[in-house]
Amino acid sequence: MTNTLLILPGDGIGPEVMAEVRKIIDWFGAKRGITFEVSEDLVGGAAYDKHGTPLTDATMAKAQEVDAVLLGAVGGPKYDKLDFSVKPERGLLRLRKEMDLYANLRPAQCFDALADFSSLKRDVVAGLDIMIVRELTSGVYFGEPRGIIKEGNERVGINTQRYTESEIARVARSAFELAKRRGNKVCSMEKANVMESGVLWRDVVQEIHDAEYPEVELSHMYADAGAMQLTRAPKQFDVIVTDNLFGDLLSDLAAMLTGSLGMLPSASLGAPMANGRPKALYEPVHGSAPDIAGQGKANPIACILSFAMALRYSFDQGDEAARLEAAVEKVLADGLRTADLMGPEGGKPVSTQGMGDAIVAALDAG
Amino acid sequence: MTNTLLILPGDGIGPEVMAEVRKIIDWFGAKRGITFEVSEDLVGGAAYDKHGTPLTDATMAKAQEVDAVLLGAVGGPKYDKLDFSVKPERGLLRLRKEMDLYANLRPAQCFDALADFSSLKRDVVAGLDIMIVRELTSGVYFGEPRGIIKEGNERVGINTQRYTESEIARVARSAFELAKRRGNKVCSMEKANVMESGVLWRDVVQEIHDAEYPEVELSHMYADAGAMQLTRAPKQFDVIVTDNLFGDLLSDLAAMLTGSLGMLPSASLGAPMANGRPKALYEPVHGSAPDIAGQGKANPIACILSFAMALRYSFDQGDEAARLEAAVEKVLADGLRTADLMGPEGGKPVSTQGMGDAIVAALDAG
Ligand SMILES: CC(C)[C@H](C(=O)O)[C@@H](O)C(=O)O
Ligand SMILES: CC(C)[C@H](C(=O)O)[C@@H](O)C(=O)O
Repeated sequence: MTNTLLILPGDGIGPEVMAEVRKIIDWFGAKRGITFEVSEDLVGGAAYDKHGTPLTDATMAKAQEVDAVLLGAVGGPKYDKLDFSVKPERGLLRLRKEMDLYANLRPAQCFDALADFSSLKRDVVAGLDIMIVRELTSGVYFGEPRGIIKEGNERVGINTQRYTESEIARVARSAFELAKRRGNKVCSMEKANVMESGVLWRDVVQEIHDAEYPEVELSHMYADAGAMQLTRAPKQFDVIVTDNLFGDLLSDLAAMLTGSLGMLPSASLGAPMANGRPKALYEPVHGSAPDIAGQGKANPIACILSFAMALRYSFDQGDEAARLEAAVEKVLADGLRTADLMGPEGGKPVSTQGMGDAIVAALDAG
Repeated sequence: MTNTLLILPGDGIGPEVMAEVRKIIDWFGAKRGITFEVSEDLVGGAAYDKHGTPLTDATMAKAQEVDAVLLGAVGGPKYDKLDFSVKPERGLLRLRKEMDLYANLRPAQCFDALADFSSLKRDVVAGLDIMIVRELTSGVYFGEPRGIIKEGNERVGINTQRYTESEIARVARSAFELAKRRGNKVCSMEKANVMESGVLWRDVVQEIHDAEYPEVELSHMYADAGAMQLTRAPKQFDVIVTDNLFGDLLSDLAAMLTGSLGMLPSASLGAPMANGRPKALYEPVHGSAPDIAGQGKANPIACILSFAMALRYSFDQGDEAARLEAAVEKVLADGLRTADLMGPEGGKPVSTQGMGDAIVAALDAG
């Protein structure tokens, strides 16, 4: 079976971190005989600049065909004044929606070498390893009606939170499946005390649990309490499953706890394709960081670890993914630090390129 | 002018913390000549148990007439299985909506004596003093259509996020007014990159700023980035203004940063009444904590400081509010600690009642 990859570097630091991922991909081809058919295209502001749209139909079609899409980042102040319908983010949202990538896996892991880098106390976050499963194709991100309408003399802004039973059920299954291979615990978060969509969410998650995963420990928490508990004692969690909007905030919060935002990858998975592989898009959790773009300051690790997730979830190469993750741990243990990782305890400063090269060297050595 | 107060202790620890507030109210009457006409009534599960509804029309009418409502807390596992329409929370939400309390002021302040108690590093939170202004009468909490409907074989959960221009404008004004008396900085948070209601929110806040408060420093942040920045470096903020749902999560997150959840009050303010005083409800940020209810373990300070906010915002007694706040600081500096405040550094353990008595004694001494 050939392995096909579509690379969409996007905006800001996207292209420069993706250049480092290319080195890793090449290494796996040359040294491990795992080869990829790679194509590259534009998304976000970069696509808008060239085509007047943040994602062309041709790129969308290509994304539907490949085994995995690897995305850098989208957005930037340059595009702030654009109409809502052509903002860079719409390109990413279209990919998520049309590929039907309903399960967004966001590990929040605290790397031991970086534990002191968190704004939280070391003992609160050291060893942290939680997985947030965020629903990614529905909810208020996509619900209709939406827009800004005129009512009398006033503008009114409207969005619709909408979840069907089957949308909730499928992402709940993803969470339970993951939990079985981890700590066997799922905490589901919503606002069932205030929102009917939250009531349905809670009910369906409970039903799927009782019928299909009774052996997994399930709890429910209101999302505001969830934000509190993530801040107070994040290690109480194993897998968290939540909707698109709550997942957006809570996964960013969880990412920040680790102190290693530049380190965190994500996978967005859909249903299996004809070849058995799931529709998949991989991207770092961090944004496009326009303020440091093009300066060799960006940390490529989140994007490299996103490729590791691709190895694991799209190409069934769990051992090779672990090999890559070990190489990353090695360079960190060796004290190599991009600017974002440079804490009071110091370290050996490296550029974006330096970090990529060091990881390739660690792969060679390992 | 008489001062009228409606006390709604509610559920869980509500009644016992409110009993301590009563001591404070009595002290102000006896020692400072500031007297209150106090009535008391039921809300939440307590009201449901007696009347089959979490808020009777009679209580609602009384709340509309008084100068200020003081609420303890609502909710508890006993009521989890109740129908959505009679859940304890609906009582509180009805008060907010019918009194039109659009500006929810949630100070997140880190008390010096308790800075080590946060899960965040001391230097990240020591001296923290931010004010979150949360819109409280609209958004997804109240938008129509809402409910769980049947579509084909499936249940579908629906809620509507909806904001009018004037709803955004009035809460923005509250935030700018507060900022002028504080650090002169407002950060507005939404998801304008994903939600049209967020686009309108951002535009209206900017318009009010430019037309009426050009001297206040205004910035905008996506709510997910806001959750990150609150965790990473909360002291960058002065006043944060945001919608009902984001405000729910972000204010709880901010509260937890301080490590002093049992210490944090809130004020919910509406338009001025005939006597010039705003419609107002004051309540602690913490919940009903059913697990420790009735054991004398609860910390009454959040509720007592909510009464201090009432002195300041409803009764124009800023100096007396400061007097009460100083008494609270005094007992903390003396090392008095309810169970929730008992950190590794120890302290003198006191009960709910002991804390209330100590604050009265500090008022006497001060
Ligand atoms: C860029 C933006 C549209 C996106 C989102 O809100 O989902 C981002 O914040 C994320 O979490 O991936
Ligand atoms: C009790 C609940 C309805 C309420 C809310 O969601 O607003 C609470 O969490 C709060 O923040 O005051």
